[in-house]
Amino acid sequence: MTATLIQRTASAYTYPLLIKNMFLAPVVDNPDQEIVYRDHLRYTYRDFRQRVHRLANALTAVGVKPGDTVAVMDWDSHRYLECFFAVPMLGAVLHTINVRLSPEQILYTIDHAEDDYLLINDEFLPVIEQIKGRIDTVKRYVLLTDLDNPPATAIPLAGEYEDLLSRADDHFDFEDFDENTRATTFYTTGTTGMPKGVYFSHRQLVLHTLGNLAAFGTATHQGRFHQQDVYLPLTPMFHVHAWGMPYVATSLGVKQVYPGKYAPGPILQLIAREGATFSHCVPTIMHMLINHPSFEEIDLSRWKVLIGGSALTKAMCQKVLNRGADIFTGYGMSETCPILTVAHVHRDDLESDEEVALRCKTGRPIPLVQLRLVDEQMNDIPKNGEEVGELVVRAPWLTQGYLKDQRNSENLWKGGYLHTGDVANINPENYVTITDRIKDVIKTGGEWLSSLELEDVIGLHPAVAEVAVIGMSDKKWGERPLALVVTKKDATPPTPRQLVSHINQFIEKGLLSKQAMLLKVRVVESIDKTSVGKIDKKTLRVKHLG
Amino acid sequence: MTATLIQRTASAYTYPLLIKNMFLAPVVDNPDQEIVYRDHLRYTYRDFRQRVHRLANALTAVGVKPGDTVAVMDWDSHRYLECFFAVPMLGAVLHTINVRLSPEQILYTIDHAEDDYLLINDEFLPVIEQIKGRIDTVKRYVLLTDLDNPPATAIPLAGEYEDLLSRADDHFDFEDFDENTRATTFYTTGTTGMPKGVYFSHRQLVLHTLGNLAAFGTATHQGRFHQQDVYLPLTPMFHVHAWGMPYVATSLGVKQVYPGKYAPGPILQLIAREGATFSHCVPTIMHMLINHPSFEEIDLSRWKVLIGGSALTKAMCQKVLNRGADIFTGYGMSETCPILTVAHVHRDDLESDEEVALRCKTGRPIPLVQLRLVDEQMNDIPKNGEEVGELVVRAPWLTQGYLKDQRNSENLWKGGYLHTGDVANINPENYVTITDRIKDVIKTGGEWLSSLELEDVIGLHPAVAEVAVIGMSDKKWGERPLALVVTKKDATPPTPRQLVSHINQFIEKGLLSKQAMLLKVRVVESIDKTSVGKIDKKTLRVKHLG
Repeated sequence: MTATLIQRTASAYTYPLLIKNMFLAPVVDNPDQEIVYRDHLRYTYRDFRQRVHRLANALTAVGVKPGDTVAVMDWDSHRYLECFFAVPMLGAVLHTINVRLSPEQILYTIDHAEDDYLLINDEFLPVIEQIKGRIDTVKRYVLLTDLDNPPATAIPLAGEYEDLLSRADDHFDFEDFDENTRATTFYTTGTTGMPKGVYFSHRQLVLHTLGNLAAFGTATHQGRFHQQDVYLPLTPMFHVHAWGMPYVATSLGVKQVYPGKYAPGPILQLIAREGATFSHCVPTIMHMLINHPSFEEIDLSRWKVLIGGSALTKAMCQKVLNRGADIFTGYGMSETCPILTVAHVHRDDLESDEEVALRCKTGRPIPLVQLRLVDEQMNDIPKNGEEVGELVVRAPWLTQGYLKDQRNSENLWKGGYLHTGDVANINPENYVTITDRIKDVIKTGGEWLSSLELEDVIGLHPAVAEVAVIGMSDKKWGERPLALVVTKKDATPPTPRQLVSHINQFIEKGLLSKQAMLLKVRVVESIDKTSVGKIDKKTLRVKHLG
Repeated sequence: MTATLIQRTASAYTYPLLIKNMFLAPVVDNPDQEIVYRDHLRYTYRDFRQRVHRLANALTAVGVKPGDTVAVMDWDSHRYLECFFAVPMLGAVLHTINVRLSPEQILYTIDHAEDDYLLINDEFLPVIEQIKGRIDTVKRYVLLTDLDNPPATAIPLAGEYEDLLSRADDHFDFEDFDENTRATTFYTTGTTGMPKGVYFSHRQLVLHTLGNLAAFGTATHQGRFHQQDVYLPLTPMFHVHAWGMPYVATSLGVKQVYPGKYAPGPILQLIAREGATFSHCVPTIMHMLINHPSFEEIDLSRWKVLIGGSALTKAMCQKVLNRGADIFTGYGMSETCPILTVAHVHRDDLESDEEVALRCKTGRPIPLVQLRLVDEQMNDIPKNGEEVGELVVRAPWLTQGYLKDQRNSENLWKGGYLHTGDVANINPENYVTITDRIKDVIKTGGEWLSSLELEDVIGLHPAVAEVAVIGMSDKKWGERPLALVVTKKDATPPTPRQLVSHINQFIEKGLLSKQAMLLKVRVVESIDKTSVGKIDKKTLRVKHLG
């Protein structure tokens, strides 16, 4: 190629895609807009701007320099939001520590990310005290607290967040730098081995934000995120930047409500009191909300909620729709920043028989996302809504590897596409349906049987509260499905025969393959979850098959 | 700065922001969506995809290589849309020739842009025949025509567009290349000197598209552009890529309607027949539509129309609102790709006294656009809605200079900001109001008097059809305003005294400065316009002051 590059005039400003450029407009345009933290604090975007500048000065005073890594351990807070901006805007890297990991895993991620500074909520001091002698990289600690008198600690603190901010100047000159500078890093707990670090540049986060503004904004009716929404995240901020939505919400200049540590009662109260209209969460959190008595009492008719992380079942979808809320699905993973697809339902399909099914599919690609469905040799699988293959992807916001892990990085990017590890079908209108994780697929008599589809169907049985399906080895079939079932409170546990007869209806309608008849059933007390609330099939296999 | 760049795994795909990446998703997702050309043609996005691939093969067969410049002279057509994609996707540069320029000016732009190929509508053959012997760079010509039997011509043609497409293969492998590759170029007819060439890269056009999807999508109610709109452009495709909207519409996957040569009757018919819901135009075109009898007859209640290029008067705004349409303003210029601001009205202000005023303001910056208001020494002017200064700008999609014109390029980018040459005020909510062009400002007794504000007020007089205000030199005042007035059909021309008494009402309300009292009035037959429909004050000054 001998294409011609554009010529740049010496004085012309070459605009880099930096996080600071997403920060400027909304805080200028909406100075009186609010940011709310639980029932503790309420301030304006005018204050927000000042506090981000103060934080940059405070961190600089503590010693933070461009290229340093600043780790945060906090629940969802206004402080975290300020770190989302100030830390990368300094040219430093924000490491959002998964506070649900074990102390050993947290130690591993601090070490591996080479964290230089740690901002830590008083609730997590005991965790750090436990591993303190073994942390080699952290130079200084800053305390985050909602308490007037935080507990004493053996950790040597450089100061308390609010105190440092109050002493810092409210203007910082944020410099320009290369848009490919690393802005964030965090760890994904796969099902094998130690957590793996992913990382994202300023350019990637800006483009992810623009792609999502475009996708959620231009939806015709349902599942919109617009300039007069009220945002309340229910995916932890340590988990893939709360799906990048705090950047989207800030760019929109909307009111933002941060709920602290998740507890269903206070969250539902916040939704009602602050008039939240846009949230996102994993099914486990939604399950927790649905089971709280307030869920039936508060007005949810203006609430939109994006579900991701694992499959939204039709039963859950219908329950939330019955309360008047707008529930729909998105798809992505830690490696993808995360959002790749969103299930927006076309006007003609709303209130049709297809509506619930479309809301539960994983949607269609957002702008600039390219999806392929491939077999093991990277040959294309037809997008006919039936045949399944592995979903591989290209987009401008995918992690370019795992931190300091060349072997896994190469596997992730084999053949120049990011491998999601998800098995899916895609229909001719480009709607994606994830049918399974490649490693969770049940291989029965030479066919691939989707554990997720089976879970979805079993979940519709009136006595079933939760279900997980795993493959158990079988001499004749290779594998056959085992359903681990949690019964609803006060319901009689269903017999295996009842469940098989239940799924048989779906087989007869052609909605499930015949292999599902080989189902085994075991009633259990609870189903193990990972630290981000997904069904932990690795543990389930050890427990129930081991 | 010693910030850390992200590490790239060898196999990882580094995603460039290329026009081909905006093309993929919609044509995959919406294969049955329609593209309509006048009453001549109607095809689907499935065909669109094939035709763009065929065009790439056809152009390659004709000789087009990466780095070549391919010029187009056509009215707004499906063919032009195909060129918007195929030409830059080949790595070539699309030169959209302004067909309203004089033959000498067209010759100048062809020469200056070093066009290698010219795709030309039969209607413009006489223009090229006239300058043929003096065109040095063009190697081959391709005919664009709606006719079965196009006229004979002395121009040696390499073929006819449809014929070339029909013989070309429908698959082309579009390669990746640097996102800073020049994609488009076109000429802006300033008010002095020969036309100046501006140019935009793939990255700039992709970011402009994303910024506009975000801005128009996330508007709460009014002035949205969403996935189920029907798009009909009324700004010529040679004029700043029809404000970039064909890229936005294609990314949205919406139905697109191209009207050919503009004529009010057929345009209004197309709007009605095809159910157009989103258009954009300059006030001159809107004026032409309003004055056509069909304007009062067809249903415009679902039609949204973005006005730019010059100021939308309150009178015009009210007329269009009265028909039930959603009219609002955007702001930008050839040098800015073009869109910088859009006037979206907040829910609370709709149907308030402020509504018309807000729709006529030039709006608020779209994502990533940074505006400053400065004096001649680049000091900031307060954004208090009153004080005026020159509007200077940074955004990721501004021309990095004028083609082969270093002196003007440096002036454009003096101090690292693009100088719009517009005088404006900005209110505390960041709403911009352009009050004048720097060179059209009337300097009266040491004060700056806005010619646009005066035109707006005079335009409200019941007998006035059109008005232009220019500064005439005056011994005592330096300059004083001269209004050139076109009277409405069947109306009695207003006397100067009547007009002064009309504007006096606005002065008394504090809406206009007192210097406006110095108004002189001259009734004229018509007001000269530039090739893109703006009031041509340069010509008016020569005519009426010379």
